Amino acid sequence: MADASWIGCAKSLKGVVLDMCGVLYDSGEGDGVVIPGSVEAVKRLRASDLKLRFCTNETQATREKFVDKLQRLGFDISVPEVFSPPPAVVAVLKERSLRPHLLVYDGVLPEFDFVDKTNPNCVVIGDAAENFSYQNMNEAFRVLIGLEKPVLFSLGQGKYYKETDGLKLDVGVYMKALEYACDLKAEVIGKPSPVFFQSVLNDMGLQPYEALMIGDDLVNDVGGAQHCGMKGVQVRTGKYRLSDESHPTVTADGTVDNLAQAVDMILNQRGH
Amino acid sequence: MADASWIGCAKSLKGVVLDMCGVLYDSGEGDGVVIPGSVEAVKRLRASDLKLRFCTNETQATREKFVDKLQRLGFDISVPEVFSPPPAVVAVLKERSLRPHLLVYDGVLPEFDFVDKTNPNCVVIGDAAENFSYQNMNEAFRVLIGLEKPVLFSLGQGKYYKETDGLKLDVGVYMKALEYACDLKAEVIGKPSPVFFQSVLNDMGLQPYEALMIGDDLVNDVGGAQHCGMKGVQVRTGKYRLSDESHPTVTADGTVDNLAQAVDMILNQRGH
Repeated sequence: MADASWIGCAKSLKGVVLDMCGVLYDSGEGDGVVIPGSVEAVKRLRASDLKLRFCTNETQATREKFVDKLQRLGFDISVPEVFSPPPAVVAVLKERSLRPHLLVYDGVLPEFDFVDKTNPNCVVIGDAAENFSYQNMNEAFRVLIGLEKPVLFSLGQGKYYKETDGLKLDVGVYMKALEYACDLKAEVIGKPSPVFFQSVLNDMGLQPYEALMIGDDLVNDVGGAQHCGMKGVQVRTGKYRLSDESHPTVTADGTVDNLAQAVDMILNQRGH
Repeated sequence: MADASWIGCAKSLKGVVLDMCGVLYDSGEGDGVVIPGSVEAVKRLRASDLKLRFCTNETQATREKFVDKLQRLGFDISVPEVFSPPPAVVAVLKERSLRPHLLVYDGVLPEFDFVDKTNPNCVVIGDAAENFSYQNMNEAFRVLIGLEKPVLFSLGQGKYYKETDGLKLDVGVYMKALEYACDLKAEVIGKPSPVFFQSVLNDMGLQPYEALMIGDDLVNDVGGAQHCGMKGVQVRTGKYRLSDESHPTVTADGTVDNLAQAVDMILNQRGH
């Protein structure tokens, strides 16, 4: 049975932001697997008067490739609706005239095609997976330790994620490693950074209290959105764990079985 | 000019503990390179009435292989005088009936030959260097996250060290990574753990105030020894940096140019 106290806000809602992996689909071999009911739920949201955006910490592919995959899975999604860390960090690099040394997954490199990477004066790490070799970590470390004022950007701060062949360490773990090695604090680009959620709200033209975030990651999706003034609802799919419902610092505004149930509740409340 | 205020304690000293890498020799290709004057300094200490032990966080080789190398470099050192983390962790594992999953350098594996490693209920990481691959980190992580009460032993907590081809990340960096991934605190075996220094003192039959530690690592050698009640002197060789002399939390009892100078000062003060 879903906790229904959060649903009181549904009538005044003007927009919904959806996390992608663990809410729309589960990643794994090939394109991964759709979470039952999610394709239909996105369709129903789109047919409603609610604004809709997607917000992911995915950093293994360009947004174009990523949206291609979601479309193959049956989702009606377009690139400009999707917010991910790589374009966000590219904007920050440009604004601050920084030239990155990249430690990222090969598939996301095209996002940095037009970024000056000569004579680097900062490091950007993403979910690099197999590229997190000892050699590549040493290289990133040497760039940082050689800078007078080392700057490290981390595309997210996730601990791990689940693929069909098991749990995999996420970028946050390697961020902590470099933070300790160089005695610095990384700048996190992506969820749960309030700046990142605010950029989504700006694009929707909404105030935080007018928008609801739905995600499977209690800290990064729900906590991040709440920190920004939005409501946050957790789904019991993806990386959800029973212990999330008694987390010491983050309490979701609501917990639902899956996206389909959340959308049902929201639209019913609004009289659709 | 060396600060000489620490030397007041030299007359009451009964033992000296020496760090090895950065004090006796610099590591690198092959056996590495002797630090000038160190072979002679060890000889002079051995000819004195002071007890002598060696204390290293070296975890890339067995003590036997490591002492072989030091002997080839000209040092008069034997295995029972050398304290390193692998035998220390083996003793802890035995005492607590723990079966480790090992993420260590291949060269140190023989230290664990007689340890039961089936169905692991803890993880031991050392300075694994190239073995710190993404795949091996995932494996260690999966063992930890699968345990009801995960236990992680880290053989030291160093940030990085210098080899002839550049700076290399040390075990502490990967310890921090796994701590964050699993929400736990590692148990550090080796310097700067007071338990480790105490085991050296026990072997010498000395009280902390009767012994002096000489090392190049301000936090792990000097700070660790001081935390245990010993005096700690830093040499300006190895990983010494000028900024160590104004470190926010650790102040050496003295700073000397190298081991030869420290031994000169101690023995002169004692009237040798």
